[in-house]
Amino acid sequence: MADLMHWSRWGNPAHRTELPESAWKLLELAFGPPRETPAVPFESLTLPPSALPPEALSAFHEVLGDGNVLLDDAARVQHTRGKSTPDLLKIRGGDVTDAPDAVLRPGSHSDVTKVLEICAEHRVAVVPFGGGTSVVGGLAARRNGLSGVVTLDMARLDRLVSLDKLAGVATLEAGLLGPHAEELLAAEGFTLGHFPQSFEYASIGGFAATRSSGQASSGYGRFDAMVVGLKVATPIGTLVLGSAPSNAAGPDLRQLVLGSEGAFGVITEVTVRIHPVPDVRIYETWRFGSFTAGRDAMRKLTQDGLRPTVIRLSDEAETAINLAKPSEVGSSSTGGCLMVTGYEGTEERVARLRAAVTAELTVLGGEALGAEDGQQWADGRFHGPYLRDVLLDRGVLVETLETATFWSNVDALYSSVKSAIESSLSDQGTPAIVLCHISHVYETGASLYFTVAARQLDNPLAQWEKAKQAASDAMIASGATITHHHAIGRDHKPWLAQEIGPVGVDILRAVKGRVDPAGILNPGVLIP
Amino acid sequence: MADLMHWSRWGNPAHRTELPESAWKLLELAFGPPRETPAVPFESLTLPPSALPPEALSAFHEVLGDGNVLLDDAARVQHTRGKSTPDLLKIRGGDVTDAPDAVLRPGSHSDVTKVLEICAEHRVAVVPFGGGTSVVGGLAARRNGLSGVVTLDMARLDRLVSLDKLAGVATLEAGLLGPHAEELLAAEGFTLGHFPQSFEYASIGGFAATRSSGQASSGYGRFDAMVVGLKVATPIGTLVLGSAPSNAAGPDLRQLVLGSEGAFGVITEVTVRIHPVPDVRIYETWRFGSFTAGRDAMRKLTQDGLRPTVIRLSDEAETAINLAKPSEVGSSSTGGCLMVTGYEGTEERVARLRAAVTAELTVLGGEALGAEDGQQWADGRFHGPYLRDVLLDRGVLVETLETATFWSNVDALYSSVKSAIESSLSDQGTPAIVLCHISHVYETGASLYFTVAARQLDNPLAQWEKAKQAASDAMIASGATITHHHAIGRDHKPWLAQEIGPVGVDILRAVKGRVDPAGILNPGVLIP
Repeated sequence: MADLMHWSRWGNPAHRTELPESAWKLLELAFGPPRETPAVPFESLTLPPSALPPEALSAFHEVLGDGNVLLDDAARVQHTRGKSTPDLLKIRGGDVTDAPDAVLRPGSHSDVTKVLEICAEHRVAVVPFGGGTSVVGGLAARRNGLSGVVTLDMARLDRLVSLDKLAGVATLEAGLLGPHAEELLAAEGFTLGHFPQSFEYASIGGFAATRSSGQASSGYGRFDAMVVGLKVATPIGTLVLGSAPSNAAGPDLRQLVLGSEGAFGVITEVTVRIHPVPDVRIYETWRFGSFTAGRDAMRKLTQDGLRPTVIRLSDEAETAINLAKPSEVGSSSTGGCLMVTGYEGTEERVARLRAAVTAELTVLGGEALGAEDGQQWADGRFHGPYLRDVLLDRGVLVETLETATFWSNVDALYSSVKSAIESSLSDQGTPAIVLCHISHVYETGASLYFTVAARQLDNPLAQWEKAKQAASDAMIASGATITHHHAIGRDHKPWLAQEIGPVGVDILRAVKGRVDPAGILNPGVLIP
Repeated sequence: MADLMHWSRWGNPAHRTELPESAWKLLELAFGPPRETPAVPFESLTLPPSALPPEALSAFHEVLGDGNVLLDDAARVQHTRGKSTPDLLKIRGGDVTDAPDAVLRPGSHSDVTKVLEICAEHRVAVVPFGGGTSVVGGLAARRNGLSGVVTLDMARLDRLVSLDKLAGVATLEAGLLGPHAEELLAAEGFTLGHFPQSFEYASIGGFAATRSSGQASSGYGRFDAMVVGLKVATPIGTLVLGSAPSNAAGPDLRQLVLGSEGAFGVITEVTVRIHPVPDVRIYETWRFGSFTAGRDAMRKLTQDGLRPTVIRLSDEAETAINLAKPSEVGSSSTGGCLMVTGYEGTEERVARLRAAVTAELTVLGGEALGAEDGQQWADGRFHGPYLRDVLLDRGVLVETLETATFWSNVDALYSSVKSAIESSLSDQGTPAIVLCHISHVYETGASLYFTVAARQLDNPLAQWEKAKQAASDAMIASGATITHHHAIGRDHKPWLAQEIGPVGVDILRAVKGRVDPAGILNPGVLIP
């Protein structure tokens, strides 16, 4: 389990990213002097006893072999939850009540099927686990009235099953983490092009189960748009989908599996469209006078059919704090609002697209700042979660949340969510810094990604829950979605119910009831 | 009901398209001398008596008003089935056993909801009816053990509900036919860009319910890709979807409604992305040496990110018969394989895209033939179904069918379906003409659209059913889809079951059972 993240922090602490001194000064001005708020030591954790039915446990051993049924504390703690700030606050405080009774490591689709049979027979809950990067409470191992709960660590399903160069599609096993998948594809000359901030630790199955969206979504598309086929183990049998890129053969059931978060089945293989490894990768920055001006430029560009591979726009606050350059957070910025544009592909394609985008952004009032800052953004784009750990260590509460809406509603949504967060934290006596960027664009709309920081109160969990509730209420009241790319998990369920209404909820329940009659699949997530 | 099609023919017979003499000569060579095979006269039809529970009938009158509850023969016959060749053969032979007991014309979402309540209470089946263009048996009004069956003609739901110019989205009522929807949008400077062959008589709700795909899908996308929101009346309440262009808020339930063919609810409003009316529309033709060469060029172009608004490629047989120019079917062709490319948009965008496509198609071996034939294709592109009527009148059996697969499988699928059709009809003593074109392209694959003609046997329905079965078996055996854009209806159900497997079928049944507990919604369609 070399790739597993640290039990109480993001990723591998050896890759820890430090915040520059200038940023600490800025934070001290805003929140007062830093103080030490460390995690409890691993040794102090007290796990609830593992309590699986002995028949189930011996059946797991029989199917998977002893080395793949883990009952030790380290494995159980490492699979306790995901990596949202609430998850981290809980485990940093020593709360491991959501640890599974065991961690199982299936090696094949058939292993998964057999495990599901055993779990259904003995009423044991199953939590599928890819890279453990959930930030919405999708991985808490709870029994929900069943006799036990196991986490299904998919890491051994790590093969490139097939690659069709002509069609540009590859079938990947669900447990492959982002970098490993890219490595296997690169050996054949291809890339998937899916780079969410969680890329280094997130899995192919997780991307599918949560409808992930990467930082290059403008060019390569959302993960759900990349998927052409799926293989899913359910308690009532295997579902194989993907007879064509698109069809009219009834509802698109792939889109029912995508976003199902382990509640309908365990995704074991994902067939995705792939692209030749780009010859050229260029990332540039632009300055716009205001967030509104930059946003209008993004909209116009997208509606004119010009889609850079990457396009992002920070608001004034995020630009000022220079979050696009993790190594310089807090140092002086260029003013206005910073946009990142990136181009990947053949020289010819990049040249053609870049020329057209550059011409249009210039007409729309953008000032080209060159490639230096853009490359810095690209180099540091997976570092954000490491910075969070450093802040959590020193008395700062920090978390992100995101939503999406249609272009005509972006302004209202931005103001409403920002002010809901600010009011909630101010009312608690901890004025907040709220930063925002547009992270993904569509012809008809865009997503807004907020980063929030405040001084930690004595109970930072309760403090954040109030702010999160206010932000979520504001999203739904604005007619926007509760999540553009983080999924539902446990944390977003009340707002999903409002977003899709009682008939929508009934449909999810009907599917769940049919494919999972014993209710063993990741109980408590997704379905309100 | 001015827009309703002729009871036994496509569209408005005043717009009848004649086949040129050269084509008749060709057909005579292939199939022998033409003979008259006319439809029975309307007067000879004998409808089964309308047999609705009296309480239901009076409730319908109360909700809709007398003028919107039609029991007359003309209305019932006009809503008897769709317009597949089997549908036409049946009704031309006088078979009106699939006539509804009544035709209801709701005027609003609320009307639809009330009708569903009455139908659920009195166990009356409901067949939603847009323009009546189904070619897969989606509109046969059958009781399926219930006490009666009504057709819900959506024609009065014909408003442009709202238009958001900034976001480029419009909400259209489901009963709007293609031309009327385009007219309402054009008045505001926009187009939807959805032009299937059925465009003149198909409805917005029907496009959604069947996952339609238009001839300009390369540029504007499939209909399901255009949809950002839906309003659906179900027996358990109203479902409203579409909080953002895309999100991660669980499974995308829009994609479960799209393709549901009236079995899960009645779609009353569809919110779609729209585009400014193009300044320029150019359609051109190209010649490639072979179907394989043209197909490789299409694939390369699409994978390089160059997507003309329209791109289609006829095989050698279809090119030879000159089907791209209905006015000249049967006359001499240019040889090789004909490709149509079309560009729509601003002058700048069209110029940019056209230059890039032209350069690449030339490198890939295409010979540019100019705009004359392309414009002829565009002018005649809705005429195909009229030609079918003329052929059915004179002893020729003619029908189309379509499928899709990944690029690496296109060759095998093409050969296998073509030879299955040829063998089946030859074995029946009626050698066939089988034509094919690639009608829609994706980065990862394409659709194949076949046109089949043969001499009619005494029982042309049985004759075609054998050929259709052979073609469908070949599609599934090739790992392709049973339908790229015609939907399932009744005709494709056995193959859908094979395509999505027992778990897929169970999921459809679960949703159906939950939203339609009385089983009143278009019983017999979609769900195997």
